[in-house]
Amino acid sequence: MVRTEPARGMRDFLPEDVRRREYVVGVIKRVYERYGFEPLETPAVENLETLLGKYGDEGNQLIYKILKRGEHEASGQADLALRYDLTVPLARVIAHHQSKLPRLFKRYQIQPVWRADRPARGRFREFYQCDVDSLGSTSPVVEAEVCAAVSDALIELGFTDFTIRLNHRQLLTSMLNALSVPESLHGSALVAVDKLDKVGVDGVRAEMTERGITAEAAGGLLGMFDSVRAADGAGVASLDAAGQAAMRNLSAIVDLVAGTTAAERMKLDPSLARGLSYYTGAIMEINVADLTGSLGGGGRYDNLVGMFLGQSVPACGFSLGLERILVVMTERGMFPASLATTPADVMVAVFDAADMPHATRVAARLRASGLRAFVYPDADKIGKQIKYADSRGIPFVALLGSDEIANGTVTVKHLAAKEQSTYDQAAAGAAILEDLKKRG
Amino acid sequence: MVRTEPARGMRDFLPEDVRRREYVVGVIKRVYERYGFEPLETPAVENLETLLGKYGDEGNQLIYKILKRGEHEASGQADLALRYDLTVPLARVIAHHQSKLPRLFKRYQIQPVWRADRPARGRFREFYQCDVDSLGSTSPVVEAEVCAAVSDALIELGFTDFTIRLNHRQLLTSMLNALSVPESLHGSALVAVDKLDKVGVDGVRAEMTERGITAEAAGGLLGMFDSVRAADGAGVASLDAAGQAAMRNLSAIVDLVAGTTAAERMKLDPSLARGLSYYTGAIMEINVADLTGSLGGGGRYDNLVGMFLGQSVPACGFSLGLERILVVMTERGMFPASLATTPADVMVAVFDAADMPHATRVAARLRASGLRAFVYPDADKIGKQIKYADSRGIPFVALLGSDEIANGTVTVKHLAAKEQSTYDQAAAGAAILEDLKKRG
Repeated sequence: MVRTEPARGMRDFLPEDVRRREYVVGVIKRVYERYGFEPLETPAVENLETLLGKYGDEGNQLIYKILKRGEHEASGQADLALRYDLTVPLARVIAHHQSKLPRLFKRYQIQPVWRADRPARGRFREFYQCDVDSLGSTSPVVEAEVCAAVSDALIELGFTDFTIRLNHRQLLTSMLNALSVPESLHGSALVAVDKLDKVGVDGVRAEMTERGITAEAAGGLLGMFDSVRAADGAGVASLDAAGQAAMRNLSAIVDLVAGTTAAERMKLDPSLARGLSYYTGAIMEINVADLTGSLGGGGRYDNLVGMFLGQSVPACGFSLGLERILVVMTERGMFPASLATTPADVMVAVFDAADMPHATRVAARLRASGLRAFVYPDADKIGKQIKYADSRGIPFVALLGSDEIANGTVTVKHLAAKEQSTYDQAAAGAAILEDLKKRG
Repeated sequence: MVRTEPARGMRDFLPEDVRRREYVVGVIKRVYERYGFEPLETPAVENLETLLGKYGDEGNQLIYKILKRGEHEASGQADLALRYDLTVPLARVIAHHQSKLPRLFKRYQIQPVWRADRPARGRFREFYQCDVDSLGSTSPVVEAEVCAAVSDALIELGFTDFTIRLNHRQLLTSMLNALSVPESLHGSALVAVDKLDKVGVDGVRAEMTERGITAEAAGGLLGMFDSVRAADGAGVASLDAAGQAAMRNLSAIVDLVAGTTAAERMKLDPSLARGLSYYTGAIMEINVADLTGSLGGGGRYDNLVGMFLGQSVPACGFSLGLERILVVMTERGMFPASLATTPADVMVAVFDAADMPHATRVAARLRASGLRAFVYPDADKIGKQIKYADSRGIPFVALLGSDEIANGTVTVKHLAAKEQSTYDQAAAGAAILEDLKKRG
C-alpha cells in the first residue's frame, strides 16, 4: 500500500485546525498593525549561502537543503535551502531593497519555517513564527514597543498569566568578565545557562565545569544572578562600565513599558541567555507556567543586517511561536465559541435529479443574500440528504419539491428546532438570515 | 560582497505587495466559503514518493527535491520534495484522514507551490494556487458549482470579460478513436492540441504529424472541433457511445450553471486539452484576452484518490492562479483605493528623549481606541520627525511637548490640512478617529 501520512514531523490541517490557526493569526496581525508594523513576506526557499553560518553549528545542521537542478542533480550538490527563521531573510531583504524601504522600518511576518529537528510533543519540522521587528533605531523605545505588541496580542487571545523575562547580552558578558571567564568560553557558558529552566542550578553548574569553566566561576555566576535581580536595574558594583550601561538600558525599557500591558508582566532575569548567536543587546522571552519552553522570544541584533549590507543597521524584534500558542490555547479551551464549525448556513436539496438546475439557481440567490449555501449534489433519498446536513451541523435545509418548483417557492426547515416555513425563492435568503440572527 | 537577492525565480513581497495579495486572497476565500468549501492546509514538504509519477514526465523533472538528513546527506539521496500542486496532497489527505472527513467533502486551499521551471515574465518558481475541490460525488452539480465559485470570485475582484472554456477528456478520446488514432498516440495528440492557442491550427497540425499522427487524422481532428462546437451539446454522429455520454455531461453542466454568474461566460471548446494527466472527465479553463495562458483551470479526476486509498473517490476541482490574477489586476489598475498604504493613522512624537515614556503611554491609549499608532523612537529634531510621518503618508502627528506633558494633553496635527488641535490625552483617540472619518 502507498504511504499516506504527511512527511515526518509535518502536519495536515483539517478545516477545524485551519480555522483555529487563522483566528490566532488574525488576532496577532491586527495587534501588530495597531503598532504600525507592516506586512512582509519572503520566499520559503533561500540560497543556501544566505542561511549558512547565521544560526551557529547546531542551526547549520538543522537546515533543510534542496538539490541543485538539472545535470548537477546526480552530484548531490545543494544550492538552496528552506527558510529556517524569519530574521535572517529579513536582514537580507533590508540589504537588498534598502532604497525602497523607509529609514525606520517596522515589519511583521507570519510564515512557516522548517527545521530538521527531532520531532517531539509540540515540536514540529514545519512551524509558523509570528515576528515583529523594528529597523533603523537604537532607542529602547523599540524594545519596549515589541514587548508591548506581543503582550497585547497574547492578552487579546485570552492569556493573562505570562511573564516577559528581560535580560541583556552585555550584562551576561560583563558578569562573565567579572568572574574572569575567558572570552573563548562565553559561548559555552551561555549554552549552559540557557538550560537553567530545564536542568536547574546544579545541572547548569555541572555543565559549566564540564565545558571547562572553573567551579568558582560557575558558582559565582549563579550567585551574581541573585544580586543583579535584587538590584532591580540599579548599579551592581562588580560589573564593568559596559555592564552598568546594559543595566541602564534594561531600566529604560522597563520605564518605557509603563502604561502598556507589558508593564506588570515584565521581569528582569539575568539568567536568560537565548540560544541564537546574533543577539547584541536586550533579549526577551515569554513564558507561561504550564508550558516547558517559551511562547516566544526576541532581542536586539545590531550586526546581522551588516553581514548582508556591509554597513550596520540597528534592529530588534520578537517572534511569537504559533504552534506553542495553539498548544496552550487548545489545552486550556481558549477558542471563542463563535468560530465556525459548519461548512454552510443552509443546504439546498431536491427530490429528483432533473430538478438540480433549480437547486443551483436557488443556491445562487441564497449566496447573493450573504448566506453560505451548500448544494447537495446527488438526488439521494431526502432522509439521507437531511441526515448529511445534520451530521455536518448545517442548521437549515432548503427543500425544492415539485410544488415548490411549480410555485417558485422553497421550504426551509430548521433541523434542530424541527420547524419549517415556505417562502418565495426571492425572499428565502433574507428570512434565513433573520432566523439565524434570532437564534443567535 | 554577499548576495542579497532572493533565490532565482522567487520573490520578496514588500508591504504594498502583501496588502494586494491579501486583498485578492481574502475575496477568493470569502467566495469559496459562500459555496460551503472549507479550509484545508497541507505541509510544504511531502515525501518524495507521494509526488513522483503523478504529474507526467515533465512534471517529475520540475519537482524540487530535498536532501535526506544526517549520515545520508553526503550520498546526495533525496527523500522529501516541495509541494508541486495542491491536488495530489489533497488526494493523500483524503486517503489518510478518511475516517475524520465527511462523505461529501468540499475544501479550498490557498497555499504556495514550487516548480523548478525556467523563470519568465509572470512565471515564478514559487507561486500561489487558490484551489476548490469537491469529493465524493460524480454529479455534474460539482462541476457547475466549482465553475460558479471561481466565476463569482473573479467578478468580485472586478473581472467581467473572462471566458470559461469547457471540454471533456472522453470527448477528446472519442474524437481520436473516430479518426482511428491509436491509443498509444492519444497522449501526444493532447500535448499538441494543448498548444492551439500558442501555435495555431497549422502549428498543431505540424506537431501532430511530427509525433506520428497521420495528416488525415490531424486535419480530421481540427475539423471535428468545428462540428462539435456547432452541435453545441447535441449529438455528433461520428462519436462513439462514450463520446455521446461526454457531450450529455457537458450539456448538463451548462444547464446547471444557468442562474449563476458562470452562465453567460461558459463556452464549449472541444480543443481544450489541459496538460495534467490525472483528469478523467470534464475539464475547464478560464481565460482573458490580455493574458497568454489562463487565469486558472480544473476538471474531474476520479482516479487520483484511488492511487493513495486503493478505492476510488470521485473528485473535481478548479485552481485559480494568484500570480496571474495579480499581473492582470496590476496592469489594469483594479485594486480598490481603500487598500492601506500607510503604516499608521497617527505618529507620536516627543521633543526630548526623557519624555519617551509619555510617548509610549499616549500611544497605548490611542491604540486602545482603535487607531494604528507609530511611536517615533528617537528624539530627533521635530521637523525631521514630521518629515518622516509625511513621507510615510501618516496623516496625523501627536506632539508631546513640555506644556502638553505638564497638562496631560496632546497636540494633534493633520499634516496635509496644516491644522492642529490640543486634546486631553484621554480624548485624543476618539477625536482623531472622528476626524479620519470626516476626511474620508
